[in-house]
Amino acid sequence: MKGDLTLLSAVQAAEGMMAGRLTSEALVSAYLARIDATENTVRAWAWLDKDHALAQAREADRIRRAGGATGALHGVPVGLKDIVDTVDMPTQRGTPVFADRRAHTDARLVERLREAGAVIMGKTKTAEFAYLHPADTTNPHDSTRTPGGSSSGSAAAVAARHVPLAVGAQTGGSVIRPASFCGTYGFKPTRGVISRSGVFRTSASLDQVGVFGATLDDIALLTNVLGCYDQSDPDSFARPRPDMLHGARSDAPVEPDIAWFDLPFHDRLDKDAAEGLEQVIAALGPRIERFPAAPQLAGLTDVHKVIYDYEITKNMEPIEADFADQLSAEVQAALVRGRAISEAQYTEALDVKSSANAFFASHFNDFDAIMAPSATGQALPLSAGNTGDAIFCTIWTLAGLPCLTMPLLVGENGLPIGVQFIGAVEEDDRLLRTAAWVQNTLSQAGEEGD
Amino acid sequence: MKGDLTLLSAVQAAEGMMAGRLTSEALVSAYLARIDATENTVRAWAWLDKDHALAQAREADRIRRAGGATGALHGVPVGLKDIVDTVDMPTQRGTPVFADRRAHTDARLVERLREAGAVIMGKTKTAEFAYLHPADTTNPHDSTRTPGGSSSGSAAAVAARHVPLAVGAQTGGSVIRPASFCGTYGFKPTRGVISRSGVFRTSASLDQVGVFGATLDDIALLTNVLGCYDQSDPDSFARPRPDMLHGARSDAPVEPDIAWFDLPFHDRLDKDAAEGLEQVIAALGPRIERFPAAPQLAGLTDVHKVIYDYEITKNMEPIEADFADQLSAEVQAALVRGRAISEAQYTEALDVKSSANAFFASHFNDFDAIMAPSATGQALPLSAGNTGDAIFCTIWTLAGLPCLTMPLLVGENGLPIGVQFIGAVEEDDRLLRTAAWVQNTLSQAGEEGD
Repeated sequence: MKGDLTLLSAVQAAEGMMAGRLTSEALVSAYLARIDATENTVRAWAWLDKDHALAQAREADRIRRAGGATGALHGVPVGLKDIVDTVDMPTQRGTPVFADRRAHTDARLVERLREAGAVIMGKTKTAEFAYLHPADTTNPHDSTRTPGGSSSGSAAAVAARHVPLAVGAQTGGSVIRPASFCGTYGFKPTRGVISRSGVFRTSASLDQVGVFGATLDDIALLTNVLGCYDQSDPDSFARPRPDMLHGARSDAPVEPDIAWFDLPFHDRLDKDAAEGLEQVIAALGPRIERFPAAPQLAGLTDVHKVIYDYEITKNMEPIEADFADQLSAEVQAALVRGRAISEAQYTEALDVKSSANAFFASHFNDFDAIMAPSATGQALPLSAGNTGDAIFCTIWTLAGLPCLTMPLLVGENGLPIGVQFIGAVEEDDRLLRTAAWVQNTLSQAGEEGD
Repeated sequence: MKGDLTLLSAVQAAEGMMAGRLTSEALVSAYLARIDATENTVRAWAWLDKDHALAQAREADRIRRAGGATGALHGVPVGLKDIVDTVDMPTQRGTPVFADRRAHTDARLVERLREAGAVIMGKTKTAEFAYLHPADTTNPHDSTRTPGGSSSGSAAAVAARHVPLAVGAQTGGSVIRPASFCGTYGFKPTRGVISRSGVFRTSASLDQVGVFGATLDDIALLTNVLGCYDQSDPDSFARPRPDMLHGARSDAPVEPDIAWFDLPFHDRLDKDAAEGLEQVIAALGPRIERFPAAPQLAGLTDVHKVIYDYEITKNMEPIEADFADQLSAEVQAALVRGRAISEAQYTEALDVKSSANAFFASHFNDFDAIMAPSATGQALPLSAGNTGDAIFCTIWTLAGLPCLTMPLLVGENGLPIGVQFIGAVEEDDRLLRTAAWVQNTLSQAGEEGD
């Protein structure tokens, strides 16, 4: 294969590898060259050892040349948010507290990647403890802006073409927002599709694993590889997972129906994001039905906050006991809030969370997807000191729904703005099929408009 | 679908299920009816709860009808050798010592089955501790004969059409021999393809998981589902697994080359088995090359025995400490032999085992498979008091090679006799492809001879 190999999609790279047109060593070398050229500015990587990456690539090539078994991601490099445990690399969780930490076992999702033949490229920078305090990663589209967080390095690494694929995690909006800010596809499948064993826990009720890629098919392929039943994760379910790639590649049997809720916090949207979303609504025409905000929906952001603050406090208190002086102001503030939440308030919040699941389940009888903003708009300037607002993601995360962002809009400064689509629980394939339809429909509308 | 559903292959059943022509409830009910009719004689099951099996079947049907995700074994019942841990069923390991034992977690391979949508039908009888002392299971072809062991119930359950698929395990010949005696396909893939986490350990160096089915495609499908990388099993490898079903369904690019070794213990073969094997050799003609026994090969059976006796003793001693009076004479004898083995003898045996791996690796440059007997011949009478001789399996198990038995011969009493094919490590797909070629070639030769 000729040209810049970092422009290949992961699907194309994997196909090229299987067909013998491409070696993993050439592919990984091309990505490493991009990293060399831009990492000084992007700062996506918490840990990266070129020799280790190349050794894995050569081993993938050796296996393939010897006629050995190849996996779905054979020789394809993948970045891992630095809260995902790996035995062969440190896992520092974005904090000096864990600067020397090296896990004794791989996260379950890392087992899946190795079994699929992937090259684990390295660990991508995360906000401290996957919470709020930013890493020093910059947005590949504008180095004066944030890539979003907390999966900052994973989003930036894919956007900067340091890797074609990366793994992140989302408790509020930590996959969807950085994907939106960085102009990549981002996908958090249904709660329980991907195991969290070996992934740093901030909130057992809310933490979910997600992925970044440059195309819809790429995120579907990676999710297929990662998904598995793991009884050691209480959210993991003992049933088949949807075939994501089949979903992304399927034609909708009839034109899908999409819902839009006018939520009270929509006034936080930037003007260009609001206008762009209106254009998408207009282009999708009668397929979109618009609803006033159901009061249940608006209240769910508070429920999310109660659960998150309460659970992160329980998880951080043992760390605080030894390392209080190494915790950011953001974590300290969460601990203060968390301690102020009574067990009764927490239990009530969990009850509301359960009822939200039922609310959404009935809703998806009539609609294939909900459309929503992915973030408030373009990536914020680094000077804002934070990775952006998760408000447009939290209620879907709370309900465990599959959430996808696609880079469909461009803001006034030329920066990407994602549009979010949310599907029914365990119908990730239907969501991806609907997203593919949206993408095609908008692309045709764009061509007609030219 | 009409007719006797227990005559469907697992592949046919899974396809029928996906296409909506068949419900899991109907399929499982048909198997339960067969069990009702014949279990009194066969005695394949250590634990079986019809309601529990039907509940799983109905759940698989509900998911499918609701448009949910389906797995590769959706709604297809599978039996598990009673040394494989399940949270929802006892795991008694063929001994009163563990009569009340219920595992707290599923074996890793059970996770894989649940994720594939399979119905876990129940637990099949095993020789005591998967060793030598027989269960009371009988051979479905002749109830006065042994089904073989130690995976007695798994082989018998498939042969009696109580389930289309079953899981077993082999330390010497505990999959290949019962499959041969019962006239099913039996397959023990390359060491490390299937995780042993949650499977009772007799010998960490030798224990391997295998499968039973009624067709080559069926055992390939089940092995694909079970195989995964599991870092908690030291033999499990962090690489892609061969695609078994693709192998079984592939045409050989050129006619394969098959080796046959005249081993010194071939004089243990029954006359009809020896004659039948000669007929197969004749039918395969120039594709078979015949070798005198390499002395290294003949010596490996002793190496296997040293390792097995030494390791089973280490594993059984804690049990002996509390339950000496509940151990069979066979286990007691193993403990006596094991204690007589010095650490030096054991270490030397492990060294020879390693060198055997290298011997075979070079061998498969010239041959696609080795052909060998699966067992000494037809199933022995129950009155023999044992499950048969593992001599024709141990050296391949020792080397971790993939081993397959196909029911190609019929003995003088009309009982099935299997023929074994052994492949290169991690080239299970090539072995299955070669086996499919053998099967087609013999079937054509048979038709021409008619």
